[in-house]
Order: sequence, then C-alpha cells, then structure tokens
Amino acid sequence: MTLAARYMSARTLDTAPVEPSPPGPGEVELAPAYVGICGTDLHIFHGDMDARVQTPAVLGHEMSGRVVSVGPGVAGWRPGDAVTVMPLRWDDTCPACRAGHQHVCQHLDFIGIDSPGAMQQRWTVPASTLIRLPESLALDRAALVEPTAVAVHDVGRAKVAEGEKVVVVGGGPVGILIALVARAAGAEVRVVELSAHRRLLAEELGLTAWDPAADDVPELVGEWTGEAGADVAFEVSGAAGGVDTAVDVLGVRGRLCLVAIHPRPREVNLHRFFWRELTLIGARLYDRGDFEKAVALVADGTIPAERLISKVVPLAQAPAAFEALEGGGNVMKILVDCTDDAQGVAV
Amino acid sequence: MTLAARYMSARTLDTAPVEPSPPGPGEVELAPAYVGICGTDLHIFHGDMDARVQTPAVLGHEMSGRVVSVGPGVAGWRPGDAVTVMPLRWDDTCPACRAGHQHVCQHLDFIGIDSPGAMQQRWTVPASTLIRLPESLALDRAALVEPTAVAVHDVGRAKVAEGEKVVVVGGGPVGILIALVARAAGAEVRVVELSAHRRLLAEELGLTAWDPAADDVPELVGEWTGEAGADVAFEVSGAAGGVDTAVDVLGVRGRLCLVAIHPRPREVNLHRFFWRELTLIGARLYDRGDFEKAVALVADGTIPAERLISKVVPLAQAPAAFEALEGGGNVMKILVDCTDDAQGVAV
Repeated sequence: MTLAARYMSARTLDTAPVEPSPPGPGEVELAPAYVGICGTDLHIFHGDMDARVQTPAVLGHEMSGRVVSVGPGVAGWRPGDAVTVMPLRWDDTCPACRAGHQHVCQHLDFIGIDSPGAMQQRWTVPASTLIRLPESLALDRAALVEPTAVAVHDVGRAKVAEGEKVVVVGGGPVGILIALVARAAGAEVRVVELSAHRRLLAEELGLTAWDPAADDVPELVGEWTGEAGADVAFEVSGAAGGVDTAVDVLGVRGRLCLVAIHPRPREVNLHRFFWRELTLIGARLYDRGDFEKAVALVADGTIPAERLISKVVPLAQAPAAFEALEGGGNVMKILVDCTDDAQGVAV
Repeated sequence: MTLAARYMSARTLDTAPVEPSPPGPGEVELAPAYVGICGTDLHIFHGDMDARVQTPAVLGHEMSGRVVSVGPGVAGWRPGDAVTVMPLRWDDTCPACRAGHQHVCQHLDFIGIDSPGAMQQRWTVPASTLIRLPESLALDRAALVEPTAVAVHDVGRAKVAEGEKVVVVGGGPVGILIALVARAAGAEVRVVELSAHRRLLAEELGLTAWDPAADDVPELVGEWTGEAGADVAFEVSGAAGGVDTAVDVLGVRGRLCLVAIHPRPREVNLHRFFWRELTLIGARLYDRGDFEKAVALVADGTIPAERLISKVVPLAQAPAAFEALEGGGNVMKILVDCTDDAQGVAV
C-alpha cells in the first residue's frame, strides 16, 4: 500500500493507504517527490468542481519525481530517471485535436482532476506524459515546472515582445511566474496585487508591484507609458475588479490575456474593446514545447523557483496545508513531499 | 444658402438653410449626392451621444458626391470629380497615431459626428479625406462604400480565411456587408437575425439566415461544423443575447470580432474564452486601404449595393426617414438625396 491525499467531499481531504496500480503497456510507475498545491486543487477542495471530480480523488498535477518501473513497450525511460509529467491525455479524434490543439481536446483527461493525481507515494501514468528533468535540477524546484509551463503558454499566447509594457493583474504563483517569463522575454513588467506579502515577494524578485486598494493603477500606467497605455495585460486574479483593471490599463490595440478562471459571467467593458481595438485572448494549459521551455527556465535560474516555495509538508499534513492556503494571506506555493522518507513510515 | 439636415436635440432633426463655408487651404468643397443614414446617426438622434455632439449638428458620413471647388494648395482634384470621403481627421501626435493606428487616434475628429457632416447641399472637407470613385459607379450605390469599408476592416481584423465557417450575429446593413465581404474572402457564412424582412433579403443575396427566436443557433452550428464550432463570429447586433450567441457558436481558438457598440458593460462568458482559448477582437472604423478595397468591391458588384438601398428621400424628408428607421422593421439602408435637383428649389 502507498499513502495518498484524497479529496472526499467539500472541505474534506484525507490521507489513506491506497493500492498501487502496476504499470500496464505504455505506462510508467513513478515515485512522486514534490507536488505543488494549485489554485485548481483549492477549487476542488472548496467543492466547486464536484460535478466533474469523482471521489475519492487523489489530487495533484504539479510534480517532480523519479521513474520506479516501466510497463511493457515503454522505451527510453529507466528506473531512477528524474521526470515531471505533462498531465494531459487527449483523444486525438475530436475537432480540437484534429485542428492541432490537443491541449484543449474536447474530451481532455486532465490527470489529477479527471483521473488520479500525484499526491501519493506511487503514481502510474502514460509514458507519453513524461518530461525529462536535468539531473542538476533539484526536485523541489522542479515541482514549479508545471505552473511555469502555464506562464510560458500565456506569454506566448499574448505574443509578448521585447520592450513591451506588461501589467500582470494578480500576483499569486502564476501571476509572478508570468511576470518573470515576460521579463525574460524583454518586457517591462508591473504586478498588481492586493496582498502585501505577495507584493513584497514580487519586489524582492526585482518586480515593481502596485496595490490596487491604495494606488490608482490606470493613472500609474498612464504616467509609466506616456498616456499610451500598456501593450499587454494578464488577468490572473479571477476577480471582477481584476477584469476591469486589465481592460482599463490597455492602450490602443492592447492585448488582454485571460488566464484566471471566472466560473460565472463577468461584466466586461466591451465599448473599450471596440474603441481601442483591444484583443482578449483566452489561454489554457500548455503544450509540450511550453513544458520543455519551462524546464529550461527553471533549470537555468531564470525562474528562481526556490523563492516561490513557502513551505514543504509531508503527505500526512496535506489536509492542514489546504486549509492554510484557503485562508490565503502569507503564502505563495506549498509543496507536498511525497518521498517515502518524508512519511516517517515504511511503504 | 444651402439646405442641411441638422440634429437639434433628442428626437429632433430639422432641415434649414445654412451658410456654405468656402474651401480654405487644403480643403475641397463638395456637392454631396447621396448620404446614408447609419446606426450611429440614429444613436445621435436618440440623444444617446449628446455629451459628444455639439448642436446644431449636420449629420452624415456615408456619402458620395462631386467636387465643386478646391481651395488653395489642393492638387489632383478638379470640379466634377466623383468622390467619397473617409471621414476621419487625426492629430498625428498621440500614442495611437505614433503607433501607426491613426484611425483610432486618441483625439479623433470623426467628421459627421464631431464636426459637420454630409447631409447638406454643399460640404467642405480636407482634400486628404477624399477617395476617388470610378465614373462607372453610380453615386447612389457609392454611398454604400463607407459601411463596406467598415465590413472590410472587420473581416480583416478577424483574419477570415478561405474555407472558414463564419457566423454573423445581426443582419442589418453592416452585418450583411460583413457577410458578403467574408463570402468574397472564401468563407462559408451564416447570418443570425431576428427580423424576417432582413433574413429574407439575406437569403435573396444567397446567404443562409437563421432566426435566433425560433432556431437553436448553437445546435445548428454544431450540425454545420461537425461539432467543431465556427471559426469566426461577428457580433453586430449590439444586444446582450447577440454577445452570448457569438461566444456560444465558436469552436476551439475561435475568433469573435466585436463590431457593434455596447454602451454599457455586458456579461460575458469568460470561462468559455479560457476553456476554448477564444479570442475577442475589437474592430472600429477603417483605414485608407479598407476604403479603397471597399470602392473596388462596390464597383465590381461583389457588393450588390443597390439591393441594400430600401429608399431614397430628399433632404426635406430626412427627419421622417430617421423616425421610420427608429421604428426598425422593414428597412435596410435609407439614403438622403442631397443633389440640388432633388430639393425642388433653386439653391
């Protein structure tokens, strides 16, 4: 048996022994090392996704780990290889796949939501989902590759170019990663974030952060851009006010990249889209190219992943970590340590 | 003195003699022939734009006519030349102009809204706004060039490509023109329109039209596209339901071109933008290239402009025509005949 963190029902996570599933043809069994807790995991924990999630559900899709064993027909992977997982399975037959957009397959299986995730001591996944990690990259930092791939995808969707002025609305983990990836692409970046703790971290990373509760953000953008407005805004807050801010700061032909999940319709100033010929660009997940670029950015230190890790807890403390994150406040990324050693008990 | 149709206050248009202004340096005096009544003119008539419009305001910006006289320093134009006007004056110094987007200049003077328009017997404009018309093109049809330029701009903003499936939500004059321009670009087009009269006209032009009150439009789009969804939707209705329809019909990576004016914020299904990686593209006005292409499309019959003209009235009947259009219903485009002959009195 291996220990797993399982979502049972709204606000209830447990840890319990589960039966490991040996790798079938084309599959690989992994020993997850570190698994990040993501905003989507929190949505599940809140009970917001009960219509989609089948309980008990092992959560976790931001991970690093090592290959334990490989199933029949798997080539190129050996026990001990350091890996992360691009947690997507698509059907290759739907119109989205046929158009080459497999990552938004109309029947996507997102591993860790629609099928069991990584918050366990052993995890079996298709070999096709594996992404190799360089041995030089510490596995705790490597758990940040998946959210970095989101950021790479978003910055790519927005086509951020050198010298452009970019406003990131929402300075949580994904917002900060977008800011760092955009800066690496040569953009000048401002982060808008309510939490003083998160603004401080952004500043420590060399980013300028504004407080939307105290600062007049559109006015600051006007001063910054000579009244031209920003070239690109990223809406990463998920809040109604965040959408308004992202629209208000953009100049003529500005691009608003929509990253956050807004479960309910939002009021949007469409007149501004018309008047300034703005563009709104939806961005979801990533493809293999984004993932490989993310590995490189984390490995070479462009993304100082260690600075974003607030805390590391063993599996048994995952439920408490979810509750702490739900309170928001002074945390950025929490990792769950799934290594056998961390559990304090023999497997 | 020349006769002019003037907006005085909400729901009040009069016709009155006004003093013609002789062309100054760089200006040209025109004799407008036909002037279309546009949705924006109706917004002004309703009183919706009183904060912007200085009364008395001579309306009209969709026009054809001939040069009467040219001011000092004007080269290339002679009395009798057939022309239309691209009714934009920009400042060439604002950030939008410096970025090459003069048509959305931050201090744009839209002639016919912000300064006197074409619904008069004599009209003086900068020579830089003139667009030459071929002598073979009848002047009544040429009055459709300006809205056709809008359609050309919109189809260009949406990057409609050959073989794509396009849904136009709203089958008024601009919607029909977008449908025709998109079809000329090789797209398959469906028009969604509430008015039976306008659907009939669309069908007569070889377009397929759906009634959103009776048809399940997303379902029809599903059948039409093999459940892939449309590649492009144009929101030309200005209605909240039109926005919803345009979002609902799009497939993965679909583009929604926002053409209509939505004065108030609208609820938008942002989750769908995220989920399907949709793009919303604001589109406003046109540039000289759009106008020149529009002249060619009207002149070669790609746009059967005569089919869109419901009625032609002399200047004295312009007030009644505005009231008729306000009632909506069984009209498409109404032209005001500004020629001296049509007024029944000597100038």
